[in-house]
Amino acid sequence: MSWQERVGDVGDGGRRMMEFLEKYIFPKINVESREDAGIVNEDFIITTDSYTIKPIIFPGGSIGKLAICGSANDVAVMGAKPTYFLLSLIADENLEMNKFLHVVEDISKYLREIDGRMLGGDLKTLKGDGEEIYVNTTCIGTRNRWLELNLEVVRNYRNYPHSWIRNCGAGEDEVVIITGNIAEHATAILLAREELGFQLDVSSDCKHLWFPIRKAMEEGGITAMKDATRGGIASALNEIAEQSGVGMVIEENKIPIREEVRSFCEVLGLDPYAMANEGVSVMTVVREMAEDVLEALHKAGEKNARIVGYTTAEHREVILRTELGSERILHMPYGSTVPRIC
Amino acid sequence: MSWQERVGDVGDGGRRMMEFLEKYIFPKINVESREDAGIVNEDFIITTDSYTIKPIIFPGGSIGKLAICGSANDVAVMGAKPTYFLLSLIADENLEMNKFLHVVEDISKYLREIDGRMLGGDLKTLKGDGEEIYVNTTCIGTRNRWLELNLEVVRNYRNYPHSWIRNCGAGEDEVVIITGNIAEHATAILLAREELGFQLDVSSDCKHLWFPIRKAMEEGGITAMKDATRGGIASALNEIAEQSGVGMVIEENKIPIREEVRSFCEVLGLDPYAMANEGVSVMTVVREMAEDVLEALHKAGEKNARIVGYTTAEHREVILRTELGSERILHMPYGSTVPRIC
Repeated sequence: MSWQERVGDVGDGGRRMMEFLEKYIFPKINVESREDAGIVNEDFIITTDSYTIKPIIFPGGSIGKLAICGSANDVAVMGAKPTYFLLSLIADENLEMNKFLHVVEDISKYLREIDGRMLGGDLKTLKGDGEEIYVNTTCIGTRNRWLELNLEVVRNYRNYPHSWIRNCGAGEDEVVIITGNIAEHATAILLAREELGFQLDVSSDCKHLWFPIRKAMEEGGITAMKDATRGGIASALNEIAEQSGVGMVIEENKIPIREEVRSFCEVLGLDPYAMANEGVSVMTVVREMAEDVLEALHKAGEKNARIVGYTTAEHREVILRTELGSERILHMPYGSTVPRIC
Repeated sequence: MSWQERVGDVGDGGRRMMEFLEKYIFPKINVESREDAGIVNEDFIITTDSYTIKPIIFPGGSIGKLAICGSANDVAVMGAKPTYFLLSLIADENLEMNKFLHVVEDISKYLREIDGRMLGGDLKTLKGDGEEIYVNTTCIGTRNRWLELNLEVVRNYRNYPHSWIRNCGAGEDEVVIITGNIAEHATAILLAREELGFQLDVSSDCKHLWFPIRKAMEEGGITAMKDATRGGIASALNEIAEQSGVGMVIEENKIPIREEVRSFCEVLGLDPYAMANEGVSVMTVVREMAEDVLEALHKAGEKNARIVGYTTAEHREVILRTELGSERILHMPYGSTVPRIC
């Protein structure tokens, strides 16, 4: 990546964004965590995210729902209970009040659902002529007994030096699970935004994952977890593999995806594995506990959760294997494959 | 305030914003703290703010400096050490890289100055044709020995039930201090943005206040503190008075303000007391300690810090008294008196 005159379209969660951060931000600012959330101490982790999605209201959710669920999921995938929230709204003065209130209602609704506490907030208005609203949420995740249970079980099987579930925590010969149907958030947003002429009943998968994750941790054995947002499962799986120093073999036919979503992607030349989800997590689990964790996910409502493959020490790549036995590498996405949606 | 069709220009920190929040946000979302920062527990407080200032680089600072200092000050005025930070950038793709890097350099510089730790971050890019960057910072403030010293001294003189310095903590017959020259941030931004034809050498007062506050707390006796940002000292003084259930009498001629800034405001019909500062705090101090606290502020570099008045139980207003003895009420600003600048 050479010197660039303008910032450019780098905020897409792929390898290009990481290169940008490594070139322009990390040499200046010592950002301690490259994970979903930063670790304050043994009791607290914290995450912040700005949401800029358009349209701000879409099938299956809104930027308000997304902001609460997205930040909750960032701490939940490290095993923390999403407990405290902070909210910062940047709203266009021109934004219609009914849309603004829809967003506020969703923030309220999902905050209550998750039993979160809103500690404080901030409101700024912009002299724009558009209908934008940007939502920033910070979430503090707290230590809890389900996380302790999970770590206890993991430590029955192997050494695990971390006090939270880390993306560097996967070991070899563990099972890879995807918790729900992929690519639906990105598909729903594209359908809502573009005049594509498709008749497709797909809603965003946007939801909070704390309850199913809690159930899964109650069984125990989860060693790494990542919500597959920007960059899709391709990014999430590669991040766990890279950070943990393991490879993965993923059976392509086991990846949960609705047939019509796969067809939609094929027709438009989109890679469903790189497409954003907002309510899907990938995880690695010690082999002995994998079926129990899967069953717990099913019982907690994640009916499409599937075991999709395993980790290996034999290589460092994420390999997709087809039913016929052919293999290809699933790379970390470079830039955005679709217009930015989250 | 009647039903409105659009959000409107409400994000200005005045009474109009509070009315908007009370009508549209607080009934839906139980925001626990209306102070600068929310209280997590005895050890941590946390604040979040989105910065949208234009221009993003201005005499005396940048949106990057402002974001670090502003969020640091929000926890410092509650007596907490600004320790952990999170950063979320929303940048226009069209933003020039050298401006982007200027902002990043400033974030880096002031984070180091304050010895803050950046726990994590987020970057989003916008498909805009402008040169915007919005910066959101979250800051976690931590308990520290200077705060303990301060509270210990306060408790030598009166009952103080809080474990942080609260905006509701002022008592009657205490001294009011303003820590620096007022209205310079707003003036600098107006000069940088508008073609006003003024030749005026005024820079923003944007700075972090943790070091002078720490020195002041070492003397002890501070009962309430508030940084006078949006809404200026008018908003800060009124907030402390309202929340604490006391009145104030402020000697107008003691308010620290540069003569040329006062003239500039007079010519343009602006109220300097309602104009934003980004490195000025107001505080109430037990009478016995006021001179010591003032001297500590002076020694820590806040040479323009002044004792400006006192609190009283005789009324609930903030009263401005002129040298000739005439009095008027300093009201909480209703909306923005100047174009939005922070």
